[in-house]
Amino acid sequence: MHSRGDSVSYSDLRLRDAHQIRAAIRKGSYNRHTAGLAAGKLQCNLAILPEASALDFLRFCQRNPRPCPVVAVSDTGDPYLPTLGHDIDIRTDVPRYRVFRDGELTEEVTDISALWRDDLVTVALGCSFTFENALMASGIPMRHIEQDKTVSMFRTNIPLVPAGPFAGNMVATMRPVKTDRVADAYRISAAFPHAHGAPIAQGDPAQIGIADLGAPDWGDPVEVRGSETPVYWACGVTPQNVLMNARLPLCITHAPGHMLIADLAETLDAPLPLAETTNR
Amino acid sequence: MHSRGDSVSYSDLRLRDAHQIRAAIRKGSYNRHTAGLAAGKLQCNLAILPEASALDFLRFCQRNPRPCPVVAVSDTGDPYLPTLGHDIDIRTDVPRYRVFRDGELTEEVTDISALWRDDLVTVALGCSFTFENALMASGIPMRHIEQDKTVSMFRTNIPLVPAGPFAGNMVATMRPVKTDRVADAYRISAAFPHAHGAPIAQGDPAQIGIADLGAPDWGDPVEVRGSETPVYWACGVTPQNVLMNARLPLCITHAPGHMLIADLAETLDAPLPLAETTNR
Repeated sequence: MHSRGDSVSYSDLRLRDAHQIRAAIRKGSYNRHTAGLAAGKLQCNLAILPEASALDFLRFCQRNPRPCPVVAVSDTGDPYLPTLGHDIDIRTDVPRYRVFRDGELTEEVTDISALWRDDLVTVALGCSFTFENALMASGIPMRHIEQDKTVSMFRTNIPLVPAGPFAGNMVATMRPVKTDRVADAYRISAAFPHAHGAPIAQGDPAQIGIADLGAPDWGDPVEVRGSETPVYWACGVTPQNVLMNARLPLCITHAPGHMLIADLAETLDAPLPLAETTNR
Repeated sequence: MHSRGDSVSYSDLRLRDAHQIRAAIRKGSYNRHTAGLAAGKLQCNLAILPEASALDFLRFCQRNPRPCPVVAVSDTGDPYLPTLGHDIDIRTDVPRYRVFRDGELTEEVTDISALWRDDLVTVALGCSFTFENALMASGIPMRHIEQDKTVSMFRTNIPLVPAGPFAGNMVATMRPVKTDRVADAYRISAAFPHAHGAPIAQGDPAQIGIADLGAPDWGDPVEVRGSETPVYWACGVTPQNVLMNARLPLCITHAPGHMLIADLAETLDAPLPLAETTNR
């Protein structure tokens, strides 16, 4: 990890718009997580992979839209994403990237310009920040955010529909919701199919193959209180996990929590409004 | 056009389920339009094209989801579509196909088994039957259906976001809606993003580049009465038009109105519920 410019603090960036935040990231002035930044703007999970695997990966995403909601696909070799925002250069505008070779994490970097190739395709996927913001705005608190933890993530027994080398089971997040607000949580998050949509299950973790809510596979455990029901959503770690298991020669993702911030509103029509996709 | 079996009438088929109707089509017993058949089941526009162009076509659809809502993508060379239904063989289960070579319509056939190749990819797209059924169920009549006409379709001046060889302007349908029900028509059709979603415009046709509502580019004209507003939706002819203009060596579509009938309910979650995509 290196910094190429003057450092900017998280609280400085909270007052900036998406374009300004990306500019700070591009300069190397900010390389931390993006939760809570550019309020109301769409944030994205990233998968950058060789064109030879891109058609299969898009088929995989189409067949598994809950964990893999595609919000943009670049032209081959083109590092820009004009349908997501103005002057988004995917080589520099994400705070932190993970580089996988043959399925192994080999580097975590803040700039992938030196790794860029003419055969790379970027796939941007919606992320849970979108529905979490909507839930909190409706008075459904997120305990992991209140406690400054990473959301609990679990391997489930829910099989994904395979495509080419991409296969496996779904990864799900769990958030405790007051039992009398669970129906609201379903309705509110269902309005964001481009950001994992409605929950995939609620209640007994065993029904989706989770043995112990206190021992998440990724992230931190959070308490589920007596008045609460555990609610499960499809998780953006699913495609990362599936990509890793496919052991592509090269694959680049964002580092968890270090997302691409788009210019589009996170409330965008599903999957993308045509008017907003024509800002090229 | 040929028939390979005993003929079955449209009214006979109205009592059959999706699988039985596809079986009749496969046998060659039915080769007419599918409007009103298998009530409540998703019907699909089709684009079958060589794998060499499939990634660009999927990018095009992702960037233009209103006219091109993808509901399934086959594996390369695989004529089956297991995420849409049981035993759907795309070579035989559509009543009528159009074959384009270098952008020219060369044949209209009822079976494409002899044309199938190991490099072909099927892309299934949602169609307007879905939201029309929902509108009619809400008491918003469809004049072209009442008058047994084909819906009016128009070239617009709305540019599509290009991808590879795929580019052009959107084609839109027009349906007259009682002015006091226009807001309902927006709300109801918006619930079906996998079937063109909400209207793209209402009122003055000139705003989207339509000169004369009485002279559609495809389909039949219908009257717009004084108490009504013309309402415009993105049209499934858009991808067909764009495919034709891309002049691929080979491309196969359904014939207009002669759709693929899926086993999925047309009310499916957007874009596809995971549980229903795992019927492989």
